[in-house]
Amino acid sequence: MIMNELRRRAIEASPLCVGIDLREDHIPEELQSLPLERQFVEYAKEIVEASAGYASCYKVQIACYEAYGLQGLQAYKEILSLVRRAGHIVIADIKRGDIGSTAQMYAQGHFEGDFEADILTLNPYMGHDAISPYTEYIRKKNKGAFILGKTSNAGSADFQDLRIGDECLYERVLKTIGRWNEAMEGFEGYGGYGAVVGVNHAGELERLKAAIDGLFLLIPGYGAQGAKIEDIAALVQKNKNGVINVSRGYTANIGKDFRRELRMRAVDLAEELGQCFR
Amino acid sequence: MIMNELRRRAIEASPLCVGIDLREDHIPEELQSLPLERQFVEYAKEIVEASAGYASCYKVQIACYEAYGLQGLQAYKEILSLVRRAGHIVIADIKRGDIGSTAQMYAQGHFEGDFEADILTLNPYMGHDAISPYTEYIRKKNKGAFILGKTSNAGSADFQDLRIGDECLYERVLKTIGRWNEAMEGFEGYGGYGAVVGVNHAGELERLKAAIDGLFLLIPGYGAQGAKIEDIAALVQKNKNGVINVSRGYTANIGKDFRRELRMRAVDLAEELGQCFR
Repeated sequence: MIMNELRRRAIEASPLCVGIDLREDHIPEELQSLPLERQFVEYAKEIVEASAGYASCYKVQIACYEAYGLQGLQAYKEILSLVRRAGHIVIADIKRGDIGSTAQMYAQGHFEGDFEADILTLNPYMGHDAISPYTEYIRKKNKGAFILGKTSNAGSADFQDLRIGDECLYERVLKTIGRWNEAMEGFEGYGGYGAVVGVNHAGELERLKAAIDGLFLLIPGYGAQGAKIEDIAALVQKNKNGVINVSRGYTANIGKDFRRELRMRAVDLAEELGQCFR
Repeated sequence: MIMNELRRRAIEASPLCVGIDLREDHIPEELQSLPLERQFVEYAKEIVEASAGYASCYKVQIACYEAYGLQGLQAYKEILSLVRRAGHIVIADIKRGDIGSTAQMYAQGHFEGDFEADILTLNPYMGHDAISPYTEYIRKKNKGAFILGKTSNAGSADFQDLRIGDECLYERVLKTIGRWNEAMEGFEGYGGYGAVVGVNHAGELERLKAAIDGLFLLIPGYGAQGAKIEDIAALVQKNKNGVINVSRGYTANIGKDFRRELRMRAVDLAEELGQCFR
């Protein structure tokens, strides 16, 4: 079960999940003469090399590459592949969500072939039959999915915070993800479904903590978006049940001596985020 | 404003929105010897040729092509391009949804370049700041977005039907989309945001009708998924404010004489769906 393996790596290395969500203005000067797609791939290579041993996994935001059409997606493919070849777990941040027969096509597209990843992020709005088509891959190929529960943006309040009786929509969604996970055949430990849970606009952490019982988490919003170490620790300290994504905070505003800087940032972040487990 | 133009075409031709959501087993025998990606493109060409004049617009489900990686997306690109070159409005059924800075990348990827479409489908779960980055394109390039309100799958009940006070979540989402639309600078008629509204699991149509006031609709679920003409008519008869997607029902189970069959199906569907406006 992939969430258990991810947890093992988070304990061994650190809860740092390096986000390879590259933008044009993240690229170090030395690589800027290459064609844009090569810049992304070459910088990604350096990022993986510099952070290996300090990170538990990598997350790649497909939108950063989809923005550039086919050539961007060629870079996306190469980045996924180089991360996986180095033996790391890669999370494809695709946030897809569609009816069953369409979800099946997305599962095929992102759990095998050009865009094969280990774990996908998925959107829950369309309900269980939009999630269940991924299950076969999760069981047979040891894949996984992080489903959006509470996101880290301010707009997450618009619908996710709406009250359903005495709980928020996101609490209901998280508890439902927990039930889906436990219902999966061959379920063990943290299973194959986890949840995306941002803490920076989450309100009462005690309620959130109750809602995520038994789930492994992908936690966005640290750094640029303002999530605090102590709030994250409130969720994961006891069970070491989450990884924490840092994207811009790791890859942007990099200087000339970027290889050394990437290494030092990885060391620092691993130490900083490791506090959540202690 | 693109929703007004779409409405004009729906009145002039028919409310039929042809879904080019192709699967391997949709392809007519005559085209099956081509490489799969060519099969998709060539069949799409025939579909557009046969249905022109009977349909108001075309919808292309990206997952059907994303499933085949880069080559599938090459076909997706060509299909979007051939539909647009023929002067038709094309809806990219991508159902994306992500935080602001990422939404901006998706907007770039699907409102310009290789994958340029006229209207996108979007997911509302992450709230307003996950939708607003598309607005600049909508205003400046006369683009549009259909945001998921009530979907046509059974699982739509899991979260969309949850009660927020005296209304369902999907009613709240639809009313919010209406407000976002009206708040758009240069708003006129049906504006640039519409909603995806399935009627096959929608419960009380009167309540749904109240929630969609002022919105132009993309209605899925007719045919294979079981939405009825009279239920659709209940929503759009008065204002002619929607297009109705037919995908499998138009493109699958096609015989040897497929060009003639596509033409006849288009004539029949235009007549059948035209009843919703009468």
